Amino acid sequence: MPFKTISQCNATSARAGILTTAHGSIETPIFMPVGTQATVKAVTPEELEGVGAQIILGNTYHLYLRPGVAVIGLFGGLHGFMQWRKPILTDSGGFQVFSLAQLSRISEEGYAFQSHLDGGARHVLTPEGAVDVQMALDSDIMMCLDQCIAHPADHPTAAAALALTSRWARRCKARWEAAGGRNQLFGIVQGGMYADLRRQSVAEIVDIGFPGYAVGGLSVGEPKPLMMEMAAHTLPLLPADAPRYVMGVGTPQDLVEMIAMGADMFDCVMPTRNARNGQLFTSAGTLNINNARYRTDTGPIDPLCDCYTCRRYSRAYVRHLLQAKEILAHRLTTLHNLRFYLNLVKQARMAILEGTFDDFRRRFAPGGASSHNDDQ
Amino acid sequence: MPFKTISQCNATSARAGILTTAHGSIETPIFMPVGTQATVKAVTPEELEGVGAQIILGNTYHLYLRPGVAVIGLFGGLHGFMQWRKPILTDSGGFQVFSLAQLSRISEEGYAFQSHLDGGARHVLTPEGAVDVQMALDSDIMMCLDQCIAHPADHPTAAAALALTSRWARRCKARWEAAGGRNQLFGIVQGGMYADLRRQSVAEIVDIGFPGYAVGGLSVGEPKPLMMEMAAHTLPLLPADAPRYVMGVGTPQDLVEMIAMGADMFDCVMPTRNARNGQLFTSAGTLNINNARYRTDTGPIDPLCDCYTCRRYSRAYVRHLLQAKEILAHRLTTLHNLRFYLNLVKQARMAILEGTFDDFRRRFAPGGASSHNDDQ
Ligand SMILES: [Zn+2]
Ligand SMILES: [Zn+2]
Repeated sequence: MPFKTISQCNATSARAGILTTAHGSIETPIFMPVGTQATVKAVTPEELEGVGAQIILGNTYHLYLRPGVAVIGLFGGLHGFMQWRKPILTDSGGFQVFSLAQLSRISEEGYAFQSHLDGGARHVLTPEGAVDVQMALDSDIMMCLDQCIAHPADHPTAAAALALTSRWARRCKARWEAAGGRNQLFGIVQGGMYADLRRQSVAEIVDIGFPGYAVGGLSVGEPKPLMMEMAAHTLPLLPADAPRYVMGVGTPQDLVEMIAMGADMFDCVMPTRNARNGQLFTSAGTLNINNARYRTDTGPIDPLCDCYTCRRYSRAYVRHLLQAKEILAHRLTTLHNLRFYLNLVKQARMAILEGTFDDFRRRFAPGGASSHNDDQ
Repeated sequence: MPFKTISQCNATSARAGILTTAHGSIETPIFMPVGTQATVKAVTPEELEGVGAQIILGNTYHLYLRPGVAVIGLFGGLHGFMQWRKPILTDSGGFQVFSLAQLSRISEEGYAFQSHLDGGARHVLTPEGAVDVQMALDSDIMMCLDQCIAHPADHPTAAAALALTSRWARRCKARWEAAGGRNQLFGIVQGGMYADLRRQSVAEIVDIGFPGYAVGGLSVGEPKPLMMEMAAHTLPLLPADAPRYVMGVGTPQDLVEMIAMGADMFDCVMPTRNARNGQLFTSAGTLNINNARYRTDTGPIDPLCDCYTCRRYSRAYVRHLLQAKEILAHRLTTLHNLRFYLNLVKQARMAILEGTFDDFRRRFAPGGASSHNDDQ
């Protein structure tokens, strides 16, 4: 197996592991910065390495439409095109077709859709096509095409989406194996907010068998306690010897809690998108740098942070750049937030290795040192 | 004098010099990247040093309104606020009041204006105030407040503006000397597009006496031959032992021609603004990276360029980022264009030192190797 558990927390289900891919090994738990359009917005590959990124995420839907696999293929894949030499995980494109395409229709075959990105041309995204595109991108970790559903969804709707997701997973695996089984293909668990369906989905996807498993369909608008309940229910059902990836989650608190449940991998636009809006994560909680109180603040964003932004610049300067709509603001805030997230998972890993994860976790609980939010 | 000529071209009036300031020496001829709002758009101070920037320009009007001198004063000036440790030149704010303020009225006293940047508050920009603000910014090279006029302007209008500019220059110098004469204050020559008025302005401004002189009122909408004629007429009138700064100019060709006329310093938004629009300067002329022909171009922007962008990325990737409106596009194109401009003035300086400037200059003449423009 490409995944190995190095250490297991005694008090929780948290674990530290190593996931081996074609472009190198990843120390888990890990957070994956989102690089939708062949760039993590505002930062370079060198800067990503500098903040501790080990693997980034690319969006198949966006890259398929623009610049297209023909262009990326000239560079041997996404790594060469964007000059990121470490591992890349790509989603299947299904969630973006579901949420971003102008016209999207689902059938047993796949998704039929149109997009403004290429002038409204018609496309069909099949399970086989999703694997083909991801293989053309030379993604280290590819995701099966799944059926995403809106929240709330009734039980029959969620059950039908789950069943289609399982049939598509089988087709994805067949295509991947037919193409030589290069790199890794992860299965995705669906089932909406229904415990019985989550259990059924895990059984079906694990029965097909993949080198890793993702929990999809969370953070889609449901209340936070429900999200946590579903994660807590689903994660322990997944095989212990494979990596567990929770898609599209979440806040620092969410990550720590889900690491405690045994999750290994995360991706979320929150650190990068919030950075561009001035929402910054710090060791003392979150702050909104646009707040007038930071206008004359000569201190760094986070005195405990070692990122370029905190080593060099004041809150007053970062606030000024953001107010003035300067590009440098987005660079500086993105670097800081990514450093915070990557430091967070690194510290979680160290705590697991040192047997102190349960203490570490308490800092992020309500009332803990890192739970303050100055926007409230 | 803080300026020393090191070498003089035999065939032209070009010269290589050293200008000493409170934050270090500058090798001339030099191009100054424009950092309007306490940042050269999209790039860091380290990157500016990396492309060879020796001095940058800050805009007094913008910084006065936002974040204001009270905030910048907390950092001891603009250097500390933006973390740029090398020399800074600031304009007086007059040109921006003239061109950007919502309501601007000029009198003997100064400019009265309102701006949306601080919600329409009323301000008065006097010659004394312009010096005060620039001293609060701790600018290494401050500029006198001058009266800018639109093009075309009739002779009496240009003559009146010239006369007011001279009276204001006297007041600026008095204020600067009263405040201890710290750093440097440059005088500005006006006179519109009239040779007699340019001569008169030089006489009056030089009579007041400054450590350096700028030619203002060029590149304000006049035809290029007229701009060149005025520069060629005005520059030789300025004292040889002081630096000569041509404000707001220009294309690579303009710079080389004006260096041949004896100009030492330039600032222009062209390399940075054009970069963000995809207009790139190269050793083979200019190119518009948005052009469809670059969609599958795996080569660098300029094979002869040593910038980060050209060392790492393809034209196809830079084009993709720009088409996708990614922030990284602006970073990569800005770095490249700034490197081109700073390399250009560096090569001009080397050519002057080596006695080959006249040959160098010919590459930029119409039909020369660096004169191609793929947008035509
Ligand atoms: Zn930081
Ligand atoms: Zn370059």
